Amino acid sequence: MPSAAGDKLWIIPDGYIPEISSGTLTSHESICVLNTASEDAHLEITIFFEDRDPIEGIAETVPGRRTRHIRTSGLKNNAGEAIPVGVPYAIEVKSDVPIIVQYSRLDSTQAENALMSVMAYPIK
Amino acid sequence: MPSAAGDKLWIIPDGYIPEISSGTLTSHESICVLNTASEDAHLEITIFFEDRDPIEGIAETVPGRRTRHIRTSGLKNNAGEAIPVGVPYAIEVKSDVPIIVQYSRLDSTQAENALMSVMAYPIK
Amino acid sequence: MPSAAGDKLWIIPDGYIPEISSGTLTSHESICVLNTASEDAHLEITIFFEDRDPIEGIAETVPGRRTRHIRTSGLKNNAGEAIPVGVPYAIEVKSDVPIIVQYSRLDSTQAENALMSVMAYPIK
Amino acid sequence: MPSAAGDKLWIIPDGYIPEISSGTLTSHESICVLNTASEDAHLEITIFFEDRDPIEGIAETVPGRRTRHIRTSGLKNNAGEAIPVGVPYAIEVKSDVPIIVQYSRLDSTQAENALMSVMAYPIK
Repeated sequence: MPSAAGDKLWIIPDGYIPEISSGTLTSHESICVLNTASEDAHLEITIFFEDRDPIEGIAETVPGRRTRHIRTSGLKNNAGEAIPVGVPYAIEVKSDVPIIVQYSRLDSTQAENALMSVMAYPIK
Repeated sequence: MPSAAGDKLWIIPDGYIPEISSGTLTSHESICVLNTASEDAHLEITIFFEDRDPIEGIAETVPGRRTRHIRTSGLKNNAGEAIPVGVPYAIEVKSDVPIIVQYSRLDSTQAENALMSVMAYPIK
Repeated sequence: MPSAAGDKLWIIPDGYIPEISSGTLTSHESICVLNTASEDAHLEITIFFEDRDPIEGIAETVPGRRTRHIRTSGLKNNAGEAIPVGVPYAIEVKSDVPIIVQYSRLDSTQAENALMSVMAYPIK
Repeated sequence: MPSAAGDKLWIIPDGYIPEISSGTLTSHESICVLNTASEDAHLEITIFFEDRDPIEGIAETVPGRRTRHIRTSGLKNNAGEAIPVGVPYAIEVKSDVPIIVQYSRLDSTQAENALMSVMAYPIK
């Protein structure tokens, strides 16, 4: 049977949704998750800011043996709170089964796009 | 005698083969592997998707004391299954001897290229 | 109660403040810190150079349950010492409570911007 | 007394010196090393290739309490062997005292530059 791999708590300190897009690509960020287990992974995402309390309780699911590349601009909790654009923030991803998390950003503020990517930091 | 270094299982959650190239460089991704041991490393690569079962059983070899920068667009299993372009996916690399794995992407969708790179995540 | 996560000592070997900006974005680097604990994190930052003694004793604070994306160009110790532009350097971040640290650079030396980001390296 | 931090063996699987530069910046790669100890760090660098034996015995020194951002294009062993441009390779950095190693690449093959950076992978 396929086995779970990775960790249950991951951190990305540098989150930022660019305000502007130009050229043919849209600026965006993705939280890329792999769930190697056979059961679903239930994520609970918290968003931290510089000058206000965190947005808590954002729920997402990654099915077993699947990846999901989740755009941060679509994240919302039950109260309808979403991440504002153009504001520095940080991301915590909790899961009930071990997963692996990578974060990537495409910035097309200027006509040609720029890319960055990091493996998220696992808390053991 | 040269000794093996690294781990036998590595994960890259954010895989994506860009559909478009422009300018002088072709968009591509590479799985960069170093085998410091004296014997060959036999890789078994699995590709995970968002909405379908994984592609399993892709075999590659990295000779002893060699590196290989493997383009993902050329990967194929015995059934001839390959990674489609323009689709989010994730990569698992298994090896019979310890190796070190890095993932890099060159995106030349727009006229000027963009680069990203991460060390893959080792599963202990 | 929210608990602290991460480590108390982080290293970034590749620091560099670009001298030039062009286009609509300013070249800059950020040390992005997340403090998941409820109490403040007091940072002590040291800057290492290739050909002179380190700048020591740069103090910054990250409040509890907050992130801060700290621009390196604004860092200064009590003696007023700051990081010169166009010079290779390295960064050590010490904290009294566990934090997570990521480093990102936006380079707009040329008209279109380039991005890079790494998770800092934790010293256990 | 300042204490050493990091590890003594680091791996970078994805090395590549771009053949072409355009615009105002030169394509290059750097191995960025921080030595937090008070004594010198003596590095021994090995370069691995896809289709030939490694180049061994490249020696560099990082003084105590200093960083060095070492361009790979200038590396040479006692036999005068250097890294060819336009060829995929991998890097091993050994040190007699613990250090921290990051790898960054600036690619200006096209008019606007692209950046990538990873923390090297420590072998414990």
